[in-house]
Amino acid sequence: MISKNRLKELTAYRLQKRCDEEAVFVVEGPKMAAEAMASGFAIRTVCATREWLASYPSTTAERRSSSPVPGEEPEWYEVTEAELERLSNFKTPNQVWMLVERKVESKKWKVESGLTLALDKIQDPGNMGTLMRTADWFGIRHIVCSPDTVSCYNPKVVQATMGAIFRTQVDYVDLPQWLVSCGMPVYGASLQGQPITPNSELRTPNSPAVLLIGNESRGISPEAMAAVTHPVLIPNLGGTAESLNASVAAGILMHWLSNQ
Amino acid sequence: MISKNRLKELTAYRLQKRCDEEAVFVVEGPKMAAEAMASGFAIRTVCATREWLASYPSTTAERRSSSPVPGEEPEWYEVTEAELERLSNFKTPNQVWMLVERKVESKKWKVESGLTLALDKIQDPGNMGTLMRTADWFGIRHIVCSPDTVSCYNPKVVQATMGAIFRTQVDYVDLPQWLVSCGMPVYGASLQGQPITPNSELRTPNSPAVLLIGNESRGISPEAMAAVTHPVLIPNLGGTAESLNASVAAGILMHWLSNQ
Repeated sequence: MISKNRLKELTAYRLQKRCDEEAVFVVEGPKMAAEAMASGFAIRTVCATREWLASYPSTTAERRSSSPVPGEEPEWYEVTEAELERLSNFKTPNQVWMLVERKVESKKWKVESGLTLALDKIQDPGNMGTLMRTADWFGIRHIVCSPDTVSCYNPKVVQATMGAIFRTQVDYVDLPQWLVSCGMPVYGASLQGQPITPNSELRTPNSPAVLLIGNESRGISPEAMAAVTHPVLIPNLGGTAESLNASVAAGILMHWLSNQ
Repeated sequence: MISKNRLKELTAYRLQKRCDEEAVFVVEGPKMAAEAMASGFAIRTVCATREWLASYPSTTAERRSSSPVPGEEPEWYEVTEAELERLSNFKTPNQVWMLVERKVESKKWKVESGLTLALDKIQDPGNMGTLMRTADWFGIRHIVCSPDTVSCYNPKVVQATMGAIFRTQVDYVDLPQWLVSCGMPVYGASLQGQPITPNSELRTPNSPAVLLIGNESRGISPEAMAAVTHPVLIPNLGGTAESLNASVAAGILMHWLSNQ
């Protein structure tokens, strides 16, 4: 059971601004909830249907391990479908809604692949989440974004990451300046780039490098492009399509660079 | 100007069923409208704002060239934003709405890459459109789908293709049977597959081959998997992510196979 007042207070977290102010983010659905509980992130509040709560850790000790307050359980409520609908950011709410605390200090990330992903003005939440999910797959733990890239804590982004939100560090920085001063080679897609084919050797294996991905419709901005040291090109074999989707192009380049 | 009655009649095309019955599909927005006019597909009806109509071909001859009735112009109406909103499949209508006739006979497609894409139970319209767009980029002109794959004429699919709908032939068939009888090697992603890396040679260059992509959450169905002759694997370098997005995985495999 949840009081009308408490429910109303929690609906305020549908606003990104409120989440930003308190450094929290919303996680929805059983799959993402399971990722949150396994992540080591502190879970502040859980609102869930009776059905989902039946699978919620049954011991107090287990619950306490994911609480932001040492020794205490996260705040939790059983809610109805209608109440969940009021909290949810989605048309079809899915059993559980959680408020999770962001990690303010740097997450400890291990550079498996030597690659860092840099995102220049990515706008679409689905693309942003998919980029984080793909980076996670290829062992890329650090993502650097221009300040006008969509927030990684946007609910649609969180959902599309399929859990990568708990495993990647996302920083918002002055991107052209960061790229120039990072001291790593910067790969970026450009129509004047070198075509990537299985026989083109582009990178010293496992050496540190940055992969820069541009905006969905305008590509890499001129300021960021100026910092690209290695322009590359995914060959357009059909000759008719104008462009690739940003997430798809990034996936092809991440696979390509991380297997060099 | 459009009459209330005619507007009401045209709103019926928001239903996929109605479009299927008359073998038409809806195209929205200036970018897709330009693709439609350049495609050689017959345009039955145009509803657009005054702003867009200012750029509509000014000569009768140009208009007639895209009409389904030889020697006649397509039916066209100037509409208000509010009227466009009633027709549109999207929250934010974008200047122009068109009813385009499907090509019933086979489109003449040229196999540039030797690859055919096969889709097993793809559900998400955004993924379907992105798969078609990526195929277009890599010169894949023929896509074969299981009957329960989302329709390529779904408005969200059409939009996400970025024009590939006019350049690819999409057939819905009994997929396992088609795969078995197509006489080509079939590549499919499998956890037991051979890892694809720049040094793995998987295919005779430019030889005919099929790339099979499975459902977003369940992957390739057992019936279709039985027809896979070349199981392949995109190496999971991070070790933490559970899967790749279907469109991203397909993009990596299309790039890989089409550059062999």
